Amino acid sequence: MSAAFTLSLDAMGGDYAPEIVLKGAAIARVRYPTAHFLLFGDEARLKPLLDADTALAAACTVRHTEQVISGEMKPSQAIRQGRQSSMWKSIEAVKNGEAAGVVSAGNTGALMAMAKIIMRPLPGIDRPAICSLFPTRLGETVMLDLGANAECDAQNLVQFAIMGECFARAILGLERPSVGLLNIGSEDVKGTGALREASQILRSTHLDLEFKGFIEGDDIAMGTVDVVVTDGFTGNVALKTAEGTAKLFGEFLKVAIRSSWLAKFGMLFAKPVLSQVMARTDARRYNGALFVGLNGVVVKSHGGTDAVGFANAIGVAVDMIARDLNRQIGEELAHMAAEQAQMQQTPPEPALAAEAASQ
Amino acid sequence: MSAAFTLSLDAMGGDYAPEIVLKGAAIARVRYPTAHFLLFGDEARLKPLLDADTALAAACTVRHTEQVISGEMKPSQAIRQGRQSSMWKSIEAVKNGEAAGVVSAGNTGALMAMAKIIMRPLPGIDRPAICSLFPTRLGETVMLDLGANAECDAQNLVQFAIMGECFARAILGLERPSVGLLNIGSEDVKGTGALREASQILRSTHLDLEFKGFIEGDDIAMGTVDVVVTDGFTGNVALKTAEGTAKLFGEFLKVAIRSSWLAKFGMLFAKPVLSQVMARTDARRYNGALFVGLNGVVVKSHGGTDAVGFANAIGVAVDMIARDLNRQIGEELAHMAAEQAQMQQTPPEPALAAEAASQ
Repeated sequence: MSAAFTLSLDAMGGDYAPEIVLKGAAIARVRYPTAHFLLFGDEARLKPLLDADTALAAACTVRHTEQVISGEMKPSQAIRQGRQSSMWKSIEAVKNGEAAGVVSAGNTGALMAMAKIIMRPLPGIDRPAICSLFPTRLGETVMLDLGANAECDAQNLVQFAIMGECFARAILGLERPSVGLLNIGSEDVKGTGALREASQILRSTHLDLEFKGFIEGDDIAMGTVDVVVTDGFTGNVALKTAEGTAKLFGEFLKVAIRSSWLAKFGMLFAKPVLSQVMARTDARRYNGALFVGLNGVVVKSHGGTDAVGFANAIGVAVDMIARDLNRQIGEELAHMAAEQAQMQQTPPEPALAAEAASQ
Repeated sequence: MSAAFTLSLDAMGGDYAPEIVLKGAAIARVRYPTAHFLLFGDEARLKPLLDADTALAAACTVRHTEQVISGEMKPSQAIRQGRQSSMWKSIEAVKNGEAAGVVSAGNTGALMAMAKIIMRPLPGIDRPAICSLFPTRLGETVMLDLGANAECDAQNLVQFAIMGECFARAILGLERPSVGLLNIGSEDVKGTGALREASQILRSTHLDLEFKGFIEGDDIAMGTVDVVVTDGFTGNVALKTAEGTAKLFGEFLKVAIRSSWLAKFGMLFAKPVLSQVMARTDARRYNGALFVGLNGVVVKSHGGTDAVGFANAIGVAVDMIARDLNRQIGEELAHMAAEQAQMQQTPPEPALAAEAASQ
């Protein structure tokens, strides 16, 4: 993005805030030289960090806030008591037009609840979702919802499909991303009622989607579809199970190599390619989940991430702003609504009408 | 197991039946020399395979069946039309007392539906579940349900916890296995109503379980608990997501190594330990899921497994028979019912009763 733009950062959110947030911003400043950062947080803690990095300081404006939303706080409590917090104020800056988007590594539930209240969902979207990228055999796959909505009905899933498709077009540059519904079998009779109903709606022609039907858990990593649609409970479990498995594999590898001198020697030569594999599945690379379906760009960084991971989360926000994702989602929803209205208004074809009348 | 015992095998179930079933039985015969196999399937196809392996033939009795349950058949259809199939007959052999357990690599839904009709669930169990082992950082974890019941209420989950705990004691040799409920956060307010209710029941004292509360997806591979309890939808997605991720990791590794001569050279030395890692996460090693909660031992092998995998599935059945898992589950359920009945009958302590009366 070459034009100047401002991002709002919740400087107090996450396990290692504010240090990691500022270090992440420093990395992002080099990547996006036209970016300006509005930092919300405790001035007394932020100032020394900025004093130590004058280049970063030049790209930042500090807005002092005293309240911090803890990781343990319930969303309802955060909303009632957290209006003076760095999180609330950093979202408000987007609503007020002071910033083009916000990034926070803080409490996910509180961030989503606040964003819904401050920004409101997009027209036509009942429930915003958490959306992110997964590494796959073929490249990358978009997956949503990753945890915002534990229980979803068919309409929620259909809206997730539309938003995920727009996200895939914007961030992966695909013209016609394929979409799959996560289920426990590919047959039409499998799964819950909501899944079967969503599948029927997604198959209907007025939704111009490349819908591939049901997919299963192993299809995620295989890259069978570009967009994996699921409820927030299943999506969150799948995401964390995949992360846990990748970590386990890496640990098994380390332990095995350490156990043998011969292997250690061999690894001197193989290390560069192994580092390559680790980089390809590095959780930091995939840090930064977008809250899709809101009137504004909100990106959630992993709470325990490091500076590189936080900079990547900033990158997701920059991408979304540059590609104007929300306008695209709005257009797709409007198109779908118009098609639906037309289908309801259009009288049946004369021949068919006659046939129907004669029955 | 040193005493002689008979296992019933669905020789026609699975992608590579009957060849893989018989090759698997040949491997199992060496491991369990006192085993006898009742083979249900097409005699014309089984006979040449047995003629080629006289040692195996001596350990087998063939029961001719003509019908085969295909992988695509719906469970309801299989039940109506499949009463002469190798699958039905092999389950019936356990019910009739001719075999101590059955192993099939065929259609999972059909196998579960038939087993429920022929064997009936154990008293106190509403819904049998699919149960298997996962590799973890600390060893192995039991997980259920892996796909038999897409939607579960609190009582189903509690019954899964009891069965999983018995399974962990039997197969992992743990005295007091810890149990966790798979959720999207560890806080009490997270997840669905069924999960919160199940958690309350599992915390109550008359169930003498080492219940650790809610766990998350990444806890599976970390081995945070010995038994992971979840509904069949989530469990199936988690299982397949983990399998897909492990496969992806392995493929990334292969591709990376192939891309560099230096790495290939290094791998000559590191190969033994890498093979060790692969063995530790080898899906064949974890082949063989137990259908728990039935009046009999039913083990489902992966449909696409090879002979080693099928032999491992036979091993699961042998273990379950040797350790008399169903008797243990029955005792635990009876103990729980007795405690519950006693709690309802016992009048409150005098002091407490007085206190209650004065309020």
